[in-house]
Amino acid sequence: MIDSQLAVSYDDILRAARTLDGVAQRTPVLTSHQADAHANARVFFKCENFQRAGAFKFRGAYNAIGCLNDEGRRNGVVTFSSGNHAQAIALAARLLDVSATVIMPSDAPTAKQAATREYGAEIILYDREKDDREELTAGIVRERGLTLIPFDHPEVIAGQGTAAKELFEEVGPLQYLFVCVGGGGLLSGSAIAAAHLAPDCVVIGVEPEAGNDAQQSLRSGTIVRIPVPTTIADGARTQFIGKLVLPILREHVRDIVTVSDAQLRRQMRFFAERMKIVVEPTGCLASAAVLDRVLDFSGARVGVIVSGGNIDTSVFSDALCSFSSPLIVR
Amino acid sequence: MIDSQLAVSYDDILRAARTLDGVAQRTPVLTSHQADAHANARVFFKCENFQRAGAFKFRGAYNAIGCLNDEGRRNGVVTFSSGNHAQAIALAARLLDVSATVIMPSDAPTAKQAATREYGAEIILYDREKDDREELTAGIVRERGLTLIPFDHPEVIAGQGTAAKELFEEVGPLQYLFVCVGGGGLLSGSAIAAAHLAPDCVVIGVEPEAGNDAQQSLRSGTIVRIPVPTTIADGARTQFIGKLVLPILREHVRDIVTVSDAQLRRQMRFFAERMKIVVEPTGCLASAAVLDRVLDFSGARVGVIVSGGNIDTSVFSDALCSFSSPLIVR
Repeated sequence: MIDSQLAVSYDDILRAARTLDGVAQRTPVLTSHQADAHANARVFFKCENFQRAGAFKFRGAYNAIGCLNDEGRRNGVVTFSSGNHAQAIALAARLLDVSATVIMPSDAPTAKQAATREYGAEIILYDREKDDREELTAGIVRERGLTLIPFDHPEVIAGQGTAAKELFEEVGPLQYLFVCVGGGGLLSGSAIAAAHLAPDCVVIGVEPEAGNDAQQSLRSGTIVRIPVPTTIADGARTQFIGKLVLPILREHVRDIVTVSDAQLRRQMRFFAERMKIVVEPTGCLASAAVLDRVLDFSGARVGVIVSGGNIDTSVFSDALCSFSSPLIVR
Repeated sequence: MIDSQLAVSYDDILRAARTLDGVAQRTPVLTSHQADAHANARVFFKCENFQRAGAFKFRGAYNAIGCLNDEGRRNGVVTFSSGNHAQAIALAARLLDVSATVIMPSDAPTAKQAATREYGAEIILYDREKDDREELTAGIVRERGLTLIPFDHPEVIAGQGTAAKELFEEVGPLQYLFVCVGGGGLLSGSAIAAAHLAPDCVVIGVEPEAGNDAQQSLRSGTIVRIPVPTTIADGARTQFIGKLVLPILREHVRDIVTVSDAQLRRQMRFFAERMKIVVEPTGCLASAAVLDRVLDFSGARVGVIVSGGNIDTSVFSDALCSFSSPLIVR
């Protein structure tokens, strides 16, 4: 372990946990005999779909805004996000009495746009195909004197790491931990928590088949950029992982695997029918990999981060009804 | 308190808790800032939709079958149920290696029929309008020498009471506890737990507007029978409450209130969109009463039992999509 060379240490996660204490939900860990039968393992689902604003992102957002000095708070914050980080920044900013501006792609789910607006943030929409998000953001930061809080930010990553910390504290040793990857904040935060709390735990990232930039980046050791991937996992339609993220993944993550949209839909239905929880497609990434046994972890104790539950009702209903063959217990 | 005259005591609940330890899920208690805003109170949701077989019924079923002597276990059990008690008996019997026969109305949700069959029970269907369920059951008990485990059974009621016991243990004092009523097993078990653990807690039952037999029975002091009520709350399409139940309700339940199917649909959508959980219509009864503020409990700590989550996917999708105006936080 050479945490000292990485942007985030376990001490940062501990500090984030103190900042979040009494503000973030300590989300429950669910288990399911049927999930265990599918995975042929003992699976622990850390349910961040029950987190405030519906996803783990609240942890990082609140921690980052909470770490601002008085001037930073007075000036307000800005971020770019397809949805959950946007909602999280909006809610965290409101709770901390800071103004928030959020730059969202125009194809972000309407539920996520509406929630972000409800929490009181100003939304600026852009075209994912045509506009340069970073240029747009840089311009707004310059003009308005706002503090940028992207997903690739030490205090954001430290905040995201508190979910895995809680999971290990609650269930004890795990041999595997599966985490979804969009920009990589949750995966890198989780990996640092795991490296400290369970050094023998194998950490695996999961991203959509349609956009395996994180897999390519981890395997090649350089950040690979891809076109906007077409996948129902809207939270993982990222084109590249963060600069702070890659060294952490190289140090602490064994591999990144992929799952298809069909697997995500099936997993969404399994969650609704069998486990009675609403999980968005991105939140199904890690679980789909585990229930479809991408690796041989027979008999192991396997942790899964269920990252979020924000999904348009109509999209959710379609996914539930589009299937004729639910998963059958093997 | 004159528990000694009642069919079930708190000691029975303690014994049931020991029987269920390590077998039943200790289900999580969820909270929601948005729910609190609706109710203008601090609301604690005991989520029995996460119980094994998807509803609190597993508690009573497993406890009752677990209390059988060797002969009873060898002979097998029989019950009648519209769904959740059926699934619960089927699963509990399988776990205890006992054969189970379940008498279900032919209009029971197909998901509940399928799950009951999957757990290995034999299903006998009857026509709710034409057939006499009790006569049919009595005939089968006679012919096959099975032990009848109805919902109105001391060990079933004691088992159901363990959910409220866990809720009080986890969250501490509550001023109100809201519980749905079908046959009354959950409400009476919960009321006994509350009377012991929180004697000042006001216990309120909630049933569908379309079938207020429990309300009439509690208020009149005699068991009132009604025609099969037409409501989406299929678990509360009961025509009368149990004989063991009524004296417990008279002793320990303040009142029974009703909610409409429209309120149940809205609550189902609230649970899915805002709290990310799948709750069946019957499971929404108590919560709908609380979020629609049937009583003035401003500022109080209010417990709610979310009784189950077993619902046909198509019915669930319809309910989610049938609405144009979701609940707005007041």
